[in-house]
Amino acid sequence: MREVAIIGIGQTPVDEHWSAGIRHLMFDAGRAALEDANIDRVDAVYVGNMLSGEIVGQSHLGALAVDFLDLDGAEAFKVEAACASGAAALRVGYLAVASGVLDIVLALGVEKMTDTSGRETTLALAAAADAEYEVSQGISFVALNALLMRRYMHEYGWRREDFANFAVTAHANGANNPYAMFQSPITPEAYARATMIATPVGLLDASPVCDGAAAVVLAPAEYARTLNPTPVKIRASAVSMAPLAVHDRNDPLALEAAAISAHKALEQASIVREDLDFFELHDAFTIMAALSLEAAGFADRGKGVRLALDGDIALGGRIPIATMGGLKARGHPVGATGLYQVVESILQLRGLAGVNQIADAKLGMTQNIGGSGATIFTHILETMS
Amino acid sequence: MREVAIIGIGQTPVDEHWSAGIRHLMFDAGRAALEDANIDRVDAVYVGNMLSGEIVGQSHLGALAVDFLDLDGAEAFKVEAACASGAAALRVGYLAVASGVLDIVLALGVEKMTDTSGRETTLALAAAADAEYEVSQGISFVALNALLMRRYMHEYGWRREDFANFAVTAHANGANNPYAMFQSPITPEAYARATMIATPVGLLDASPVCDGAAAVVLAPAEYARTLNPTPVKIRASAVSMAPLAVHDRNDPLALEAAAISAHKALEQASIVREDLDFFELHDAFTIMAALSLEAAGFADRGKGVRLALDGDIALGGRIPIATMGGLKARGHPVGATGLYQVVESILQLRGLAGVNQIADAKLGMTQNIGGSGATIFTHILETMS
Repeated sequence: MREVAIIGIGQTPVDEHWSAGIRHLMFDAGRAALEDANIDRVDAVYVGNMLSGEIVGQSHLGALAVDFLDLDGAEAFKVEAACASGAAALRVGYLAVASGVLDIVLALGVEKMTDTSGRETTLALAAAADAEYEVSQGISFVALNALLMRRYMHEYGWRREDFANFAVTAHANGANNPYAMFQSPITPEAYARATMIATPVGLLDASPVCDGAAAVVLAPAEYARTLNPTPVKIRASAVSMAPLAVHDRNDPLALEAAAISAHKALEQASIVREDLDFFELHDAFTIMAALSLEAAGFADRGKGVRLALDGDIALGGRIPIATMGGLKARGHPVGATGLYQVVESILQLRGLAGVNQIADAKLGMTQNIGGSGATIFTHILETMS
Repeated sequence: MREVAIIGIGQTPVDEHWSAGIRHLMFDAGRAALEDANIDRVDAVYVGNMLSGEIVGQSHLGALAVDFLDLDGAEAFKVEAACASGAAALRVGYLAVASGVLDIVLALGVEKMTDTSGRETTLALAAAADAEYEVSQGISFVALNALLMRRYMHEYGWRREDFANFAVTAHANGANNPYAMFQSPITPEAYARATMIATPVGLLDASPVCDGAAAVVLAPAEYARTLNPTPVKIRASAVSMAPLAVHDRNDPLALEAAAISAHKALEQASIVREDLDFFELHDAFTIMAALSLEAAGFADRGKGVRLALDGDIALGGRIPIATMGGLKARGHPVGATGLYQVVESILQLRGLAGVNQIADAKLGMTQNIGGSGATIFTHILETMS
């Protein structure tokens, strides 16, 4: 197998895009990535998306992407792993280039969630959980996370307010990201008095429903530099799975698949977690940020919240997360999120993250979670020196 | 890249499975394939599916498959390319094994279409076409095919009755396939008096709405025989795309992407079409069978119907198609169809096709079509001597 590098990135602002269809979002992010890579043709387009059939009434996004982006000769299809669909598309691109079957691949994540009723979106998102054993009991995705957060508070003695810094940090970083949905800081007081959605999950614990697309161009590492002066190498691509329904897991508060996925990725990259300069984790809810930090070994069980309280997750901290706003403030257009994480990581690794730049960033880890922890993709990215 | 072989196959009967959920269909086909391959663990499960989010309210099928099939340690996600989702899952498995990243992959296609209203299914299927430029005009998938069939009849002077043998041949072959939805022969007279769905497409021109799952196990060709005594090599895996909307194509009656995809596949396999012992094509409608034969070069433009009239497509004919019933009689559970084609081809190549066995079958081609010709996967399979 060949080593794989990323030679181009593109993204649309995350927003409620009332005047753009799903094809326009794909076009904008895809074109930006191709221009950044200085190429105008690719061998494949793999589209990460969860909800286009349900919400937009458009399946078959692979064909639509090739058609609308005018990429004659490319193969294309959609890849879906609930909210981890973006990283799943990256994974397929990685396999295709590593195999030697294809050379240049566009991995493109897209989601358009706002062109429908909130009820429809909530139902469609719930399909990431177990339809027969969870959703049929009336569970929504927010409710699932509320159960996890309440159990965590009970088990480890935290108060709701202790989670505030996850949201505060994400918004502080999002404030400097022109592509973020929310570009305004929030205070711990605002967090404390936020409307409850499903107690203890308040409005500022949850990532927003939104639209967006993000894309990267993959190429063989061996000649990546001939195409782009600042390629980034994919040092690891790891996937792990846990039972779909939360009640089937050994311990609902242990993201076991996240732990295994991160462990495998570190092993593939032959590094230890302390080598990482940042960790773009899947903070769809504040509780998921805490559990992800614990699973990756940055905190002991029940202590993930401590990293937020102590400022370890801030840009200058021990392990910066959500460096461009994370799912919470940049937004969580579900099928695109895994690729937004990668695009933002590459901005950091290229030294182009502006006010949010992490000094000397060379190694970053992204983790994209499908469902409440059932599918976990972890990628490690490194500047090519 | 490594060569890839298929070492196990499994399928459920195609039917209206009122007593089985989508997870049970995945389990039955997946387990059968694993048992046939004599293995109990895999590195990945790639699920081909189009409609589970829309019809069953269950996305995230990759996680569900690993969970329900008890395949700890495997990675998994869903792959979608409308009605070509099954072949798309095979494609990802092929890339993963060819790359050397993974060794053993289960490619699993599944669809459950009957647990809803006919209106909902029709709408969900229409999402394979262009939502903004075709579906918004009121087009359904049957109507699209009716337009193509009528244009073909006008252009080349055929009558509706001239298509009868496509359906008659499919049903004759399906009659001997215990997994087929329709196991009864039909007569040309029955075809002629079939209820019109969208003139000139009658009930016996169209494949049925149904449920089913089919699966294959992939392994590196170099040691496939140590796992299974009768492995089949994937000699070619080719994908081509055409504009999503029919009106954007140079010629709506030329399946250009099918022609390119078949051409690429033959080139990869270093064979000519006359070497093929059979061709499992995508006869979702009789008109698609005719157009597919023409695109692959078995007939000149406008002459595909002639192959049916002359019996060239029958089991003993020049180029047998739908050897186990095809989409028309075996059934077309959309996301599973591409893998049913492969499973049936392997039965032929192993000499296990029973009454429908093609003498000395060594080389077969499968072609799975997404939308009305926008995504075309062509695979060539060969016995390993």
